[in-house]
Amino acid sequence: MTQPARSPLAPEGFPDLPAIAGVTLRVARARYKAWDRCDLTFVTLDPGTTAAGVLTRSKCPSPEVEWCRAALPLGIARALVVNAGNSNAFTGNRGRAAVEAIAARAAAHLGCQPSDVFVASTGVIGVPLPIDKAEAGLDAAFTAQACGWKDAAATIMTTDTFEKAAVTRAVIGDRTVSFVGIVKGSGMIAPDMATMLGFIFTDAAIEPGLLQAMLSAANRATFSAITVDSDTSTSDTVLAFATGKAGNAPIASFDDAGADAVQAALTDMCRQLAHLVVRDGEGASKFIEITVTGAESDDSAHRIALSIANSPLVKTAIAGEDANWGRVVMAVGKAGEPAERDKLSIRFGATQVATGGLAVEGYDEAPVAAHLKGKEIEIGVDLGLGDGRATVWTCDLTHGYISINADYRS
Amino acid sequence: MTQPARSPLAPEGFPDLPAIAGVTLRVARARYKAWDRCDLTFVTLDPGTTAAGVLTRSKCPSPEVEWCRAALPLGIARALVVNAGNSNAFTGNRGRAAVEAIAARAAAHLGCQPSDVFVASTGVIGVPLPIDKAEAGLDAAFTAQACGWKDAAATIMTTDTFEKAAVTRAVIGDRTVSFVGIVKGSGMIAPDMATMLGFIFTDAAIEPGLLQAMLSAANRATFSAITVDSDTSTSDTVLAFATGKAGNAPIASFDDAGADAVQAALTDMCRQLAHLVVRDGEGASKFIEITVTGAESDDSAHRIALSIANSPLVKTAIAGEDANWGRVVMAVGKAGEPAERDKLSIRFGATQVATGGLAVEGYDEAPVAAHLKGKEIEIGVDLGLGDGRATVWTCDLTHGYISINADYRS
Repeated sequence: MTQPARSPLAPEGFPDLPAIAGVTLRVARARYKAWDRCDLTFVTLDPGTTAAGVLTRSKCPSPEVEWCRAALPLGIARALVVNAGNSNAFTGNRGRAAVEAIAARAAAHLGCQPSDVFVASTGVIGVPLPIDKAEAGLDAAFTAQACGWKDAAATIMTTDTFEKAAVTRAVIGDRTVSFVGIVKGSGMIAPDMATMLGFIFTDAAIEPGLLQAMLSAANRATFSAITVDSDTSTSDTVLAFATGKAGNAPIASFDDAGADAVQAALTDMCRQLAHLVVRDGEGASKFIEITVTGAESDDSAHRIALSIANSPLVKTAIAGEDANWGRVVMAVGKAGEPAERDKLSIRFGATQVATGGLAVEGYDEAPVAAHLKGKEIEIGVDLGLGDGRATVWTCDLTHGYISINADYRS
Repeated sequence: MTQPARSPLAPEGFPDLPAIAGVTLRVARARYKAWDRCDLTFVTLDPGTTAAGVLTRSKCPSPEVEWCRAALPLGIARALVVNAGNSNAFTGNRGRAAVEAIAARAAAHLGCQPSDVFVASTGVIGVPLPIDKAEAGLDAAFTAQACGWKDAAATIMTTDTFEKAAVTRAVIGDRTVSFVGIVKGSGMIAPDMATMLGFIFTDAAIEPGLLQAMLSAANRATFSAITVDSDTSTSDTVLAFATGKAGNAPIASFDDAGADAVQAALTDMCRQLAHLVVRDGEGASKFIEITVTGAESDDSAHRIALSIANSPLVKTAIAGEDANWGRVVMAVGKAGEPAERDKLSIRFGATQVATGGLAVEGYDEAPVAAHLKGKEIEIGVDLGLGDGRATVWTCDLTHGYISINADYRS
């Protein structure tokens, strides 16, 4: 396929990102596909770095996901290897052997345990990752010059149209700690935990158990609240690494000083990264925020919001800049959650278009039409039943999505 | 929107259908939209006709659906009124008043109870059905010449590109009974019971309780096993009417002579009608049959098959004639049902492409490519876990779907 142009929803440029003490980035050409670009990222993490992660719930996960799932309970990390262009998923023993070979080679280079090495890969499914290319790529990376965040963010991309990264900060006692995250993902994005690949690095000192609890908490309202096409990847992985180089008193529980600030910074980071994925949704021309209120519970609100966000008819209506709120009613009705038609209210932008189970008599269509012509769309649904609420984010469904996916592998 | 061309998956022509004694069809112009076509269908049923139905499970059903739900327990019918171009859904009291007015006027004309009159409407959501147009249309229909099945099948259409009907027969004792069905539906099709509107007529004598049990049984493996876009309509309705004019000894239980033959004919009828809806799926260029075997249960197989059938990435791959079985793995993995990657086998047409959790070494891609170039696609998935099996039917996802739905209301 021809690489589509930079998403119209992409931010102006790449953000200014600080270095994170204890993190060294390198990239190399493993040439997993017939392309002349860096496609292997090798991140070294200084001793003492703690790790946490959330992984796809797919019943057919990649061997990389299984490797990370086995390594996470130890809570420590010395390296991260990311391959682009081949997901190595559904490749049986050969795929598992490739992951083991990568971890072993990186561990030998760093003098650490293979279980200290985290591995992630995305790209085509069903083709075993070639071990010879991976090892040659790693060897090249070991001796490469250290690079910056933008090179790393570019090297993990597949069908992405722009590099995605964010920075947040928090104060712990007398130290300011920084979080830098990079993410990739554009299609096969659905909320069964995550985008495809996200990596977060901080110089804060955080005990691994707390880091895991904080990442899991941050995930639910961020990566688990986005969808591009309802299709959950076999490789979804979000990992967080804390080097401790900021010199703050290590925090180990939510009661420790600074823990709230760290949780806020981590959640903000995850939200920024999740939004960047939606903004690079395959074929996307509109960024859509859907807020459901008045549900019987937050979980119920979340499921109804996703039913709307995953509806092809809602997504195509937005693509057509058509305030077709009847399709929103349909999506609420099919969600299978408690709802009463005659208590339902729907809003596009700031304009109430339906309330009490029917259209608002002669509502002003002008502001609605103007809102839908924009790139940032807001849909609000109130069920009038309880206090449950949730917000999810998605993009519209356009000819671009069909073009990208009807000839992806070819 | 401009009416799209006849679906490439449409059958050659319209079938030869027998008259059903006790059923009289009439059509008229209510002009629910700015079009010059018949859009109101009035079916009279002779006294003694029994009725059964299955209705959408949407939490936001149309008042027509609520009306039918209330009338069905009585099990008898004297008339059916079908409106095209306006679903009357989400219109509050005005919508309910329109349905009551239609039933009252038809009942007065026939000298029956309003509850003997079934009403169904499809089209745009949120616009109250204009009572004056409905009553004028009814009055015109009362005095119109009786028409044939094709006229009725055409009059219930909205975005459909061809008239859909089928015939089946069964022998009860010394009588042969006939079933004739008509159906409409093309978008907003998802398996939460049914297509949008389906009507089945038979001259058999069947007690209403048994007719309902038989229709519900037939529905599960037919209308509930199709999906075009995963979007469940607010108006889904399938009704069956038995006039008893064939003179067979009325059947009242599954143990009665001929009951098995009638169930088979009714199920065959529902399957034929369901397939016709998929063949008119918005933008469809391929008819896809997905069979899942080796699941832990039939229900589990059904959910996994629908996860594949509703996957935009699977549907776009088929549109691109790409044997991208990795996307099938993804869809199995995301279904949330018991599955073991390393026991999974996948087949396109007759060719096994993956087994035991990895690609079949050097499988012959030629027959797969040839199969995908056809209009009838078969995907087989074996989970290797148990005896559960299910088959569902869908169509591919093409630019046509986007074009139709990005400017439907406009």
